[in-house]
Amino acid sequence: MKIFRYGAKGSEKAGVILNEKKYDVSEGNFQYNRDFFANTANLEKLQAYVEKNSETLKEIDVNERIGTPLETPSKILCVGLNFDDHVKETNLQQAAEPIVFMKSVSAFNGPFDGITLPKNSVKSDWETELAIVIGKKASYVSEEEALDYVFGYVLHNDVTEREFQIERGGTWDKGKGCDTFAPIGPFIATKDEIQDVDNMRIWLKLNGELMQDGNTSDFIYRVPKLISYLSQFMSLLPGDIISTGSPAGSGMGKSPQRFLRDGDIIEYGIEGLGSGKQVVSAYSLS
Amino acid sequence: MKIFRYGAKGSEKAGVILNEKKYDVSEGNFQYNRDFFANTANLEKLQAYVEKNSETLKEIDVNERIGTPLETPSKILCVGLNFDDHVKETNLQQAAEPIVFMKSVSAFNGPFDGITLPKNSVKSDWETELAIVIGKKASYVSEEEALDYVFGYVLHNDVTEREFQIERGGTWDKGKGCDTFAPIGPFIATKDEIQDVDNMRIWLKLNGELMQDGNTSDFIYRVPKLISYLSQFMSLLPGDIISTGSPAGSGMGKSPQRFLRDGDIIEYGIEGLGSGKQVVSAYSLS
Repeated sequence: MKIFRYGAKGSEKAGVILNEKKYDVSEGNFQYNRDFFANTANLEKLQAYVEKNSETLKEIDVNERIGTPLETPSKILCVGLNFDDHVKETNLQQAAEPIVFMKSVSAFNGPFDGITLPKNSVKSDWETELAIVIGKKASYVSEEEALDYVFGYVLHNDVTEREFQIERGGTWDKGKGCDTFAPIGPFIATKDEIQDVDNMRIWLKLNGELMQDGNTSDFIYRVPKLISYLSQFMSLLPGDIISTGSPAGSGMGKSPQRFLRDGDIIEYGIEGLGSGKQVVSAYSLS
Repeated sequence: MKIFRYGAKGSEKAGVILNEKKYDVSEGNFQYNRDFFANTANLEKLQAYVEKNSETLKEIDVNERIGTPLETPSKILCVGLNFDDHVKETNLQQAAEPIVFMKSVSAFNGPFDGITLPKNSVKSDWETELAIVIGKKASYVSEEEALDYVFGYVLHNDVTEREFQIERGGTWDKGKGCDTFAPIGPFIATKDEIQDVDNMRIWLKLNGELMQDGNTSDFIYRVPKLISYLSQFMSLLPGDIISTGSPAGSGMGKSPQRFLRDGDIIEYGIEGLGSGKQVVSAYSLS
């Protein structure tokens, strides 16, 4: 099942994608919030609803805004430096175990809503990533059972201000959680939709030019390891998002470095998880 | 006004403290959630309700559980190393500007609920802190106007696993967001209740022995600076919590170092913000 949301920001409605067409299911009283993800019966109910009403589901107008495919989660946990080629280009140091940081949920944004550069940003950068959506509270789970805690997967652009992240003292969190810096979507694919999470192409174009072209086959730490690892430090809750790191090709890795500017257009995607597109705007008071 | 919540975890009811007695206001339909903090009219309504019903408010039984004084916020932002004496004892490096990290909101806990040591914790530690509760969306605010964005202040024990924080690679977030590691409360004092936020005693006792005894007068960065600074990186939302750093006296600063063990009792407080008390438990499967 592929689930998405559409409509005005803050009042999005639930939908499903069937044969590449988008249909409303909000009339069936579905909402993709933490309660939805907390109970596997809800996905079964949704599937039954879609089957029963397959002839009468309302198709969504192609001009509708596509929002984040879920309501704001309790947390966005991210893994840094999970591709060797990205570690090299950043000149940052890989650790003996996964590097973890958090992204403020106030950065949560739809996949076509645009990115606003922070007021004093000179080094905003892109990072296409595969993100996991948690489907069951996970605390101290083993790698073997980790996939039982996955609801599905979703596309994420882990937008990052490199100066704020690296040159302003302390942890990375300053440069990761700026408003609009977490475009999520266009849809969540339930885990059964993904044939091999360890073999998915990840790409990103800036103004039409291919900048990132990687594959999850090059993960240093794979999905079960990451879930098990993170669950040793804190509970992962239904609807929480875990972003798994980006391959080479970020702006800081280019020579010369290339950071985001007003008017830039970012298009990016992951095989099986669709694509997003953001127009970049300078900060303005409006 | 001093506001608090009481009752079973997850279904706490709203209350107010008047002359050191606790009264229910949930019958007036008040809930201390993000919507409450987002609109200053709600505090005025609460004050009017309390005045109007002063003779008939129901006093709360002293045996009732005291919960967090607000529902889970969208984020808990923390400032590290904000007292010179604490910087020295940690042997960590002070930066040229405030050090920022995040605490997972899944760590949120009542002030008397107890702390559970993570399964493999050998270096769990305490940190009493003054925390700010945001009352209005703050984005790029100046120091001069920063206090307009404060709803009030609350006591926080920024419990920290030092090995997870410092020795496991990457940012501090791994050691800050463990379940039960953010006891908040007992109450929020609205900002008018606090005479001088730059002169409040902060203390903590472990098993009756005084371990921390500081004062906010020794802040390196003061409240207006912190709000203004953080709002340059991300929007601060109504109900968000900003913890301002802990004075000397943490377990890692002792010689020899002293970390939390099963059965330890922590009592701590800030002048004007009440006190909390936690019994420490080893992790168990129950």
